[in-house]
Amino acid sequence: MYIPKHFGAPSDEAIEVLIKTFPLANLLTACADEPSGWTVNPVPVGLFEPLAKGSRLWAHVARANPLWEGLADQPQAILMFNGPSAYITPNAYPSKQATHRVVPTYNYTAVQLTGRLTVHHDAAVKQDIVERLTNYHEREQPVPWSINEAPADYLQAMLKAIVGLEFTVETTQAKWKVSQNRPTADQQGVIADLERRQDLAATAQMAALVRQTTS
Amino acid sequence: MYIPKHFGAPSDEAIEVLIKTFPLANLLTACADEPSGWTVNPVPVGLFEPLAKGSRLWAHVARANPLWEGLADQPQAILMFNGPSAYITPNAYPSKQATHRVVPTYNYTAVQLTGRLTVHHDAAVKQDIVERLTNYHEREQPVPWSINEAPADYLQAMLKAIVGLEFTVETTQAKWKVSQNRPTADQQGVIADLERRQDLAATAQMAALVRQTTS
Repeated sequence: MYIPKHFGAPSDEAIEVLIKTFPLANLLTACADEPSGWTVNPVPVGLFEPLAKGSRLWAHVARANPLWEGLADQPQAILMFNGPSAYITPNAYPSKQATHRVVPTYNYTAVQLTGRLTVHHDAAVKQDIVERLTNYHEREQPVPWSINEAPADYLQAMLKAIVGLEFTVETTQAKWKVSQNRPTADQQGVIADLERRQDLAATAQMAALVRQTTS
Repeated sequence: MYIPKHFGAPSDEAIEVLIKTFPLANLLTACADEPSGWTVNPVPVGLFEPLAKGSRLWAHVARANPLWEGLADQPQAILMFNGPSAYITPNAYPSKQATHRVVPTYNYTAVQLTGRLTVHHDAAVKQDIVERLTNYHEREQPVPWSINEAPADYLQAMLKAIVGLEFTVETTQAKWKVSQNRPTADQQGVIADLERRQDLAATAQMAALVRQTTS
Protein backbone atom coordinates (compact mmCIF):
# COMPACT_ATOMS: atom_id res chain seq x y z
CA MET A 1 0.00 0.00 0.00
CA TYR A 2 1.35 3.38 -1.00
CA ILE A 3 1.48 5.70 2.03
CA PRO A 4 2.80 9.27 1.59
CA LYS A 5 4.28 10.60 4.84
CA HIS A 6 1.39 12.99 5.49
CA PHE A 7 -1.11 10.11 5.27
CA GLY A 8 0.38 7.96 8.02
CA ALA A 9 -1.67 6.63 10.95
CA PRO A 10 -1.80 8.96 13.97
CA SER A 11 -0.86 6.22 16.47
CA ASP A 12 -0.51 2.48 17.05
CA GLU A 13 -3.67 2.71 19.13
CA ALA A 14 -5.60 4.13 16.15
CA ILE A 15 -4.50 1.14 14.07
CA GLU A 16 -5.73 -1.33 16.70
CA VAL A 17 -9.02 0.56 17.02
CA LEU A 18 -9.55 0.30 13.25
CA ILE A 19 -8.96 -3.48 13.29
CA LYS A 20 -11.32 -3.94 16.24
CA THR A 21 -14.02 -1.62 14.86
CA PHE A 22 -13.90 -3.00 11.30
CA PRO A 23 -12.96 -6.65 11.94
CA LEU A 24 -14.26 -8.00 8.62
CA ALA A 25 -10.94 -8.15 6.75
CA ASN A 26 -10.22 -9.21 3.20
CA LEU A 27 -7.94 -12.24 3.50
CA LEU A 28 -5.66 -12.79 0.50
CA THR A 29 -4.24 -16.24 -0.01
CA ALA A 30 -2.55 -18.08 -2.86
CA CYS A 31 -4.97 -20.04 -5.05
CA ALA A 32 -3.81 -22.13 -7.98
CA ASP A 33 -7.32 -22.13 -9.49
CA GLU A 34 -7.47 -18.34 -9.89
CA PRO A 35 -5.96 -16.70 -13.00
CA SER A 36 -4.07 -14.26 -10.76
CA GLY A 37 -2.81 -17.04 -8.49
CA TRP A 38 -4.52 -15.35 -5.51
CA THR A 39 -7.98 -15.21 -4.08
CA VAL A 40 -9.77 -12.95 -1.59
CA ASN A 41 -12.24 -13.89 1.14
CA PRO A 42 -13.94 -11.51 3.59
CA VAL A 43 -13.30 -12.99 7.05
CA PRO A 44 -14.12 -11.62 10.54
CA VAL A 45 -10.80 -11.45 12.38
CA GLY A 46 -10.05 -11.10 16.09
CA LEU A 47 -7.09 -9.23 17.57
CA PHE A 48 -6.78 -10.00 21.28
CA GLU A 49 -3.28 -8.70 22.03
CA PRO A 50 -1.23 -5.58 21.20
CA LEU A 51 -0.44 -5.41 17.48
CA ALA A 52 3.26 -5.96 16.74
CA LYS A 53 5.52 -8.12 14.65
CA GLY A 54 4.85 -11.69 15.76
CA SER A 55 1.46 -11.04 17.31
CA ARG A 56 -1.40 -13.22 16.19
CA LEU A 57 -4.90 -12.67 14.86
CA TRP A 58 -7.60 -15.34 14.84
CA ALA A 59 -10.44 -16.33 12.54
CA HIS A 60 -12.35 -19.28 11.16
CA VAL A 61 -13.89 -20.11 7.83
CA ALA A 62 -16.19 -22.84 6.55
CA ARG A 63 -14.34 -26.14 6.06
CA ALA A 64 -16.00 -26.14 2.62
CA ASN A 65 -14.12 -22.92 1.76
CA PRO A 66 -11.21 -24.23 -0.35
CA LEU A 67 -8.91 -21.35 0.68
CA TRP A 68 -7.05 -23.57 3.20
CA GLU A 69 -6.59 -26.52 0.85
CA GLY A 70 -3.39 -26.94 -1.11
CA LEU A 71 -1.63 -24.10 0.70
CA ALA A 72 2.06 -24.34 1.45
CA ASP A 73 3.09 -24.79 5.11
CA GLN A 74 2.52 -21.46 6.90
CA PRO A 75 1.97 -19.62 3.62
CA GLN A 76 2.26 -15.89 3.11
CA ALA A 77 -1.08 -14.09 3.40
CA ILE A 78 -2.41 -10.53 3.58
CA LEU A 79 -5.15 -9.13 5.80
CA MET A 80 -6.65 -5.89 4.57
CA PHE A 81 -8.82 -3.96 7.04
CA ASN A 82 -10.79 -1.01 5.65
CA GLY A 83 -12.11 1.80 7.85
CA PRO A 84 -14.74 4.36 6.85
CA SER A 85 -14.46 6.06 3.47
CA ALA A 86 -16.19 9.00 1.80
CA TYR A 87 -15.98 10.99 -1.43
CA ILE A 88 -14.85 14.57 -0.78
CA THR A 89 -16.25 17.20 -3.13
CA PRO A 90 -14.21 20.34 -3.88
CA ASN A 91 -17.42 22.19 -2.96
CA ALA A 92 -16.57 21.40 0.68
CA TYR A 93 -13.39 23.49 0.54
CA PRO A 94 -13.70 27.23 1.32
CA SER A 95 -10.41 27.62 -0.60
CA LYS A 96 -12.29 26.68 -3.77
CA GLN A 97 -13.88 30.12 -3.88
CA ALA A 98 -10.51 31.83 -3.47
CA THR A 99 -8.28 29.95 -5.91
CA HIS A 100 -10.25 27.16 -7.62
CA ARG A 101 -6.99 25.20 -7.31
CA VAL A 102 -8.77 22.15 -5.89
CA VAL A 103 -9.73 18.68 -7.09
CA PRO A 104 -12.02 15.97 -5.69
CA THR A 105 -10.63 13.14 -3.60
CA TYR A 106 -11.63 10.13 -1.58
CA ASN A 107 -10.92 9.91 2.16
CA TYR A 108 -10.36 6.51 3.75
CA THR A 109 -8.40 4.58 6.34
CA ALA A 110 -6.90 1.13 5.85
CA VAL A 111 -4.52 -1.30 7.55
CA GLN A 112 -2.64 -3.91 5.53
CA LEU A 113 -1.02 -6.74 7.50
CA THR A 114 1.29 -9.21 5.86
CA GLY A 115 2.12 -12.43 7.63
CA ARG A 116 1.83 -16.18 7.71
CA LEU A 117 -1.21 -18.36 8.05
CA THR A 118 -1.62 -21.49 10.15
CA VAL A 119 -4.70 -23.67 9.62
CA HIS A 120 -6.15 -25.43 12.66
CA HIS A 121 -8.21 -28.61 12.59
CA ASP A 122 -8.06 -29.44 16.30
CA ALA A 123 -11.54 -29.15 17.87
CA ALA A 124 -10.25 -27.61 21.12
CA VAL A 125 -8.27 -24.93 19.26
CA LYS A 126 -11.25 -24.18 17.04
CA GLN A 127 -13.58 -23.93 20.04
CA ASP A 128 -11.15 -21.53 21.71
CA ILE A 129 -11.08 -19.32 18.58
CA VAL A 130 -14.89 -19.32 18.34
CA GLU A 131 -15.25 -18.48 22.04
CA ARG A 132 -12.83 -15.57 21.93
CA LEU A 133 -14.42 -14.11 18.79
CA THR A 134 -17.91 -14.58 20.22
CA ASN A 135 -17.05 -12.98 23.54
CA TYR A 136 -15.53 -10.01 21.71
CA HIS A 137 -18.52 -9.47 19.42
CA GLU A 138 -21.08 -10.01 22.21
CA ARG A 139 -19.34 -7.57 24.57
CA GLU A 140 -21.99 -4.86 24.16
CA GLN A 141 -25.06 -7.10 24.16
CA PRO A 142 -27.34 -6.47 27.19
CA VAL A 143 -27.19 -10.24 27.81
CA PRO A 144 -24.18 -11.56 25.87
CA TRP A 145 -24.80 -14.85 24.11
CA SER A 146 -22.40 -17.57 25.17
CA ILE A 147 -21.21 -20.55 23.21
CA ASN A 148 -22.33 -22.68 26.18
CA GLU A 149 -25.96 -21.93 25.35
CA ALA A 150 -25.71 -24.15 22.29
CA PRO A 151 -26.34 -27.91 22.84
CA ALA A 152 -23.07 -29.89 22.91
CA ASP A 153 -23.94 -32.09 19.89
CA TYR A 154 -24.84 -29.02 17.83
CA LEU A 155 -21.66 -27.19 18.85
CA GLN A 156 -19.48 -30.18 17.91
CA ALA A 157 -21.19 -30.41 14.51
CA MET A 158 -20.63 -26.68 13.97
CA LEU A 159 -16.94 -26.98 14.93
CA LYS A 160 -16.53 -29.86 12.46
CA ALA A 161 -17.84 -27.58 9.72
CA ILE A 162 -15.10 -24.94 10.18
CA VAL A 163 -11.34 -24.65 10.15
CA GLY A 164 -9.48 -22.28 12.47
CA LEU A 165 -7.08 -19.67 11.11
CA GLU A 166 -4.11 -18.15 12.94
CA PHE A 167 -2.35 -15.20 11.27
CA THR A 168 1.09 -14.24 12.55
CA VAL A 169 2.01 -10.64 11.75
CA GLU A 170 5.19 -9.84 9.83
CA THR A 171 4.53 -6.25 8.65
CA THR A 172 1.93 -3.56 9.35
CA GLN A 173 1.10 -0.72 6.94
CA ALA A 174 -1.55 1.83 7.89
CA LYS A 175 -2.92 4.70 5.80
CA TRP A 176 -5.00 7.58 7.17
CA LYS A 177 -6.18 9.65 4.20
CA VAL A 178 -8.30 12.11 6.15
CA SER A 179 -7.67 15.60 4.69
CA GLN A 180 -4.40 16.20 6.62
CA ASN A 181 -3.03 17.82 3.45
CA ARG A 182 -5.67 20.57 3.43
CA PRO A 183 -5.57 23.96 5.18
CA THR A 184 -7.50 24.14 8.45
CA ALA A 185 -10.44 25.99 6.88
CA ASP A 186 -10.82 23.25 4.27
CA GLN A 187 -10.66 20.56 6.96
CA GLN A 188 -13.47 22.33 8.80
CA GLY A 189 -15.41 22.49 5.53
CA VAL A 190 -14.94 18.74 5.00
CA ILE A 191 -16.16 17.97 8.53
CA ALA A 192 -19.24 20.18 8.04
CA ASP A 193 -20.00 18.65 4.63
CA LEU A 194 -19.66 15.07 5.91
CA GLU A 195 -21.86 15.79 8.93
CA ARG A 196 -24.51 17.31 6.67
CA ARG A 197 -24.92 14.11 4.65
CA GLN A 198 -27.77 11.77 5.53
CA ASP A 199 -26.16 8.43 4.68
CA LEU A 200 -27.36 5.26 6.38
CA ALA A 201 -25.18 3.33 8.81
CA ALA A 202 -23.90 -0.08 7.65
CA THR A 203 -26.36 -1.78 10.03
CA ALA A 204 -29.33 -0.01 8.41
CA GLN A 205 -27.96 -0.80 4.94
CA MET A 206 -27.61 -4.47 5.92
CA ALA A 207 -31.18 -4.50 7.28
CA ALA A 208 -32.35 -3.33 3.84
CA LEU A 209 -30.33 -6.07 2.10
CA VAL A 210 -31.80 -8.77 4.36
CA ARG A 211 -35.29 -7.40 3.69
CA GLN A 212 -34.68 -7.46 -0.09
CA THR A 213 -33.91 -11.18 -0.08
CA THR A 214 -36.87 -12.09 2.15
CA SER A 215 -39.56 -10.29 0.16
CA MET B 1 -14.00 -16.13 -2.95
CA TYR B 2 -15.97 -19.05 -1.56
CA ILE B 3 -19.67 -18.65 -2.42
CA PRO B 4 -22.12 -21.36 -1.29
CA LYS B 5 -25.17 -21.52 -3.59
CA HIS B 6 -27.50 -19.94 -1.04
CA PHE B 7 -25.20 -16.89 -0.70
CA GLY B 8 -25.20 -15.88 -4.37
CA ALA B 9 -26.08 -12.35 -5.51
CA PRO B 10 -29.79 -11.77 -6.19
CA SER B 11 -29.18 -10.20 -9.63
CA ASP B 12 -26.63 -8.67 -11.98
CA GLU B 13 -28.20 -5.31 -11.18
CA ALA B 14 -27.48 -5.80 -7.45
CA ILE B 15 -23.81 -6.41 -8.27
CA GLU B 16 -23.59 -3.20 -10.30
CA VAL B 17 -25.35 -1.25 -7.54
CA LEU B 18 -22.80 -2.52 -5.00
CA ILE B 19 -19.87 -1.41 -7.19
CA LYS B 20 -21.43 2.02 -7.75
CA THR B 21 -22.45 2.51 -4.12
CA PHE B 22 -19.13 1.30 -2.63
CA PRO B 23 -16.67 2.36 -5.35
CA LEU B 24 -13.58 2.35 -3.11
CA ALA B 25 -12.19 -1.05 -4.10
CA ASN B 26 -9.11 -2.86 -2.88
CA LEU B 27 -6.88 -3.25 -5.93
CA LEU B 28 -4.51 -6.23 -5.75
CA THR B 29 -1.46 -6.17 -7.97
CA ALA B 30 1.80 -8.08 -8.12
CA CYS B 31 4.62 -6.42 -6.19
CA ALA B 32 8.12 -7.86 -6.08
CA ASP B 33 8.96 -5.83 -2.96
CA GLU B 34 6.25 -7.47 -0.83
CA PRO B 35 6.96 -10.78 0.93
CA SER B 36 3.74 -12.22 -0.48
CA GLY B 37 4.50 -10.98 -3.99
CA TRP B 38 1.28 -8.94 -3.97
CA THR B 39 0.18 -5.59 -2.62
CA VAL B 40 -3.18 -3.96 -1.97
CA ASN B 41 -4.24 -0.35 -2.54
CA PRO B 42 -7.67 1.16 -1.88
CA VAL B 43 -8.68 2.93 -5.11
CA PRO B 44 -11.95 4.65 -6.10
CA VAL B 45 -13.15 2.87 -9.24
CA GLY B 46 -15.72 3.90 -11.85
CA LEU B 47 -18.02 1.52 -13.73
CA PHE B 48 -19.74 3.35 -16.58
CA GLU B 49 -21.13 0.45 -18.63
CA PRO B 50 -22.97 -2.82 -17.91
CA LEU B 51 -20.74 -5.28 -16.03
CA ALA B 52 -19.74 -8.27 -18.15
CA LYS B 53 -16.68 -10.14 -19.30
CA GLY B 54 -14.62 -7.63 -21.26
CA SER B 55 -16.20 -4.52 -19.78
CA ARG B 56 -13.87 -1.93 -18.32
CA LEU B 57 -13.58 -0.05 -15.05
CA TRP B 58 -11.57 3.12 -14.60
CA ALA B 59 -9.43 4.64 -11.87
CA HIS B 60 -6.34 6.71 -11.23
CA VAL B 61 -3.63 6.68 -8.60
CA ALA B 62 -0.78 8.97 -7.67
CA ARG B 63 2.14 8.65 -10.07
CA ALA B 64 4.24 8.31 -6.92
CA ASN B 65 2.34 5.11 -6.05
CA PRO B 66 4.75 2.37 -7.18
CA LEU B 67 1.96 -0.11 -7.90
CA TRP B 68 2.14 0.55 -11.66
CA GLU B 69 5.93 0.28 -11.92
CA GLY B 70 7.57 -2.96 -12.90
CA LEU B 71 4.28 -4.63 -13.78
CA ALA B 72 4.09 -7.05 -16.68
CA ASP B 73 2.20 -5.94 -19.79
CA GLN B 74 -1.54 -6.01 -18.96
CA PRO B 75 -0.95 -7.89 -15.71
CA GLN B 76 -3.52 -9.89 -13.80
CA ALA B 77 -5.17 -7.89 -11.04
CA ILE B 78 -8.09 -8.22 -8.64
CA LEU B 79 -10.66 -5.60 -7.63
CA MET B 80 -12.47 -6.36 -4.37
CA PHE B 81 -15.58 -4.28 -3.63
CA ASN B 82 -17.06 -4.61 -0.15
CA GLY B 83 -20.65 -3.69 0.65
CA PRO B 84 -22.09 -3.17 4.14
CA SER B 85 -21.29 -5.70 6.85
CA ALA B 86 -22.59 -6.36 10.36
CA TYR B 87 -22.12 -8.88 13.17
CA ILE B 88 -25.28 -10.90 13.75
CA THR B 89 -25.88 -12.03 17.33
CA PRO B 90 -27.82 -15.26 18.01
CA ASN B 91 -29.92 -13.08 20.32
CA ALA B 92 -31.56 -11.69 17.17
CA TYR B 93 -33.00 -15.10 16.25
CA PRO B 94 -36.42 -16.02 17.74
CA SER B 95 -35.45 -19.66 17.05
CA LYS B 96 -32.78 -19.33 19.75
CA GLN B 97 -35.44 -19.54 22.45
CA ALA B 98 -36.92 -22.67 20.88
CA THR B 99 -33.87 -24.80 20.10
CA HIS B 100 -30.68 -22.94 21.09
CA ARG B 101 -29.22 -24.51 17.92
CA VAL B 102 -27.80 -21.19 16.72
CA VAL B 103 -24.37 -19.59 16.41
CA PRO B 104 -23.21 -16.04 15.68
CA THR B 105 -22.28 -14.97 12.18
CA TYR B 106 -21.23 -11.97 10.13
CA ASN B 107 -23.37 -10.66 7.28
CA TYR B 108 -21.71 -8.95 4.33
CA THR B 109 -21.76 -8.45 0.58
CA ALA B 110 -18.73 -8.44 -1.69
CA VAL B 111 -17.83 -8.48 -5.38
CA GLN B 112 -14.47 -9.83 -6.54
CA LEU B 113 -13.47 -9.01 -10.12
CA THR B 114 -10.44 -10.58 -11.73
CA GLY B 115 -9.02 -9.06 -14.87
CA ARG B 116 -6.16 -7.27 -16.52
CA LEU B 117 -4.76 -3.84 -15.87
CA THR B 118 -3.67 -1.23 -18.39
CA VAL B 119 -1.73 1.81 -17.16
CA HIS B 120 -2.32 5.10 -18.97
CA HIS B 121 0.16 7.99 -19.15
CA ASP B 122 -1.53 9.98 -21.92
CA ALA B 123 -2.85 13.31 -20.58
CA ALA B 124 -6.05 13.21 -22.65
CA VAL B 125 -6.91 9.70 -21.48
CA LYS B 126 -6.17 10.65 -17.88
CA GLN B 127 -8.33 13.78 -18.15
CA ASP B 128 -11.18 11.70 -19.58
CA ILE B 129 -10.92 9.25 -16.63
CA VAL B 130 -10.88 12.10 -14.10
CA GLU B 131 -13.86 13.80 -15.76
CA ARG B 132 -15.99 10.65 -15.83
CA LEU B 133 -15.20 9.80 -12.21
CA THR B 134 -15.82 13.40 -11.12
CA ASN B 135 -19.14 13.65 -12.95
CA TYR B 136 -20.25 10.38 -11.36
CA HIS B 137 -19.31 11.41 -7.83
CA GLU B 138 -20.73 14.93 -8.19
CA ARG B 139 -24.07 13.68 -9.57
CA GLU B 140 -25.98 14.43 -6.37
CA GLN B 141 -24.34 17.76 -5.52
CA PRO B 142 -26.78 20.71 -5.66
CA VAL B 143 -24.24 22.43 -7.93
CA PRO B 144 -21.91 19.69 -9.25
CA TRP B 145 -18.26 20.72 -9.33
CA SER B 146 -16.75 20.46 -12.79
CA ILE B 147 -13.15 19.83 -13.73
CA ASN B 148 -13.39 22.99 -15.89
CA GLU B 149 -13.55 25.12 -12.74
CA ALA B 150 -9.89 24.37 -12.05
CA PRO B 151 -7.35 26.66 -13.78
CA ALA B 152 -5.76 24.95 -16.81
CA ASP B 153 -2.19 25.11 -15.43
CA TYR B 154 -3.31 23.57 -12.15
CA LEU B 155 -5.27 20.83 -13.91
CA GLN B 156 -2.30 19.92 -16.10
CA ALA B 157 -0.04 19.73 -13.04
CA MET B 158 -2.58 17.50 -11.29
CA LEU B 159 -2.84 15.22 -14.34
CA LYS B 160 0.95 14.91 -14.44
CA ALA B 161 0.86 13.69 -10.84
CA ILE B 162 -1.39 10.70 -11.59
CA VAL B 163 -1.50 7.63 -13.79
CA GLY B 164 -4.73 6.31 -15.26
CA LEU B 165 -5.85 2.72 -14.70
CA GLU B 166 -8.08 0.66 -16.97
CA PHE B 167 -9.29 -2.70 -15.64
CA THR B 168 -10.74 -5.18 -18.13
CA VAL B 169 -13.01 -7.75 -16.49
CA GLU B 170 -12.35 -11.47 -16.92
CA THR B 171 -14.41 -12.98 -14.08
CA THR B 172 -17.02 -11.73 -11.60
CA GLN B 173 -17.74 -13.38 -8.25
CA ALA B 174 -20.40 -11.93 -5.97
CA LYS B 175 -21.37 -13.02 -2.47
CA TRP B 176 -24.52 -11.93 -0.64
CA LYS B 177 -24.30 -13.28 2.91
CA VAL B 178 -27.50 -11.72 4.22
CA SER B 179 -29.29 -14.33 6.37
CA GLN B 180 -30.87 -16.20 3.42
CA ASN B 181 -30.12 -19.45 5.27
CA ARG B 182 -32.32 -18.54 8.27
CA PRO B 183 -36.06 -19.18 8.72
CA THR B 184 -38.29 -16.18 7.99
CA ALA B 185 -38.83 -15.41 11.67
CA ASP B 186 -35.06 -15.22 12.23
CA GLN B 187 -34.66 -12.97 9.19
CA GLN B 188 -37.28 -10.63 10.66
CA GLY B 189 -35.40 -10.74 13.97
CA VAL B 190 -32.14 -9.81 12.22
CA ILE B 191 -33.78 -6.87 10.45
CA ALA B 192 -35.28 -5.61 13.72
CA ASP B 193 -31.97 -6.01 15.56
CA LEU B 194 -29.98 -4.18 12.87
CA GLU B 195 -32.50 -1.34 12.73
CA ARG B 196 -32.35 -0.97 16.50
CA ARG B 197 -28.59 -0.32 16.51
CA GLN B 198 -27.40 3.27 16.65
CA ASP B 199 -24.21 3.00 14.56
CA LEU B 200 -22.87 6.05 12.77
CA ALA B 201 -22.82 6.30 8.98
CA ALA B 202 -19.40 6.15 7.28
CA THR B 203 -19.64 9.89 6.55
CA ALA B 204 -20.09 10.71 10.24
CA GLN B 205 -17.25 8.32 11.16
CA MET B 206 -15.01 10.03 8.59
CA ALA B 207 -15.94 13.47 9.97
CA ALA B 208 -14.73 12.26 13.38
CA LEU B 209 -11.45 10.99 11.90
CA VAL B 210 -10.80 14.32 10.15
CA ARG B 211 -11.55 16.14 13.40
CA GLN B 212 -9.12 13.89 15.32
CA THR B 213 -6.22 14.84 13.07
CA THR B 214 -7.01 18.57 13.12
CA SER B 215 -7.29 18.97 16.88
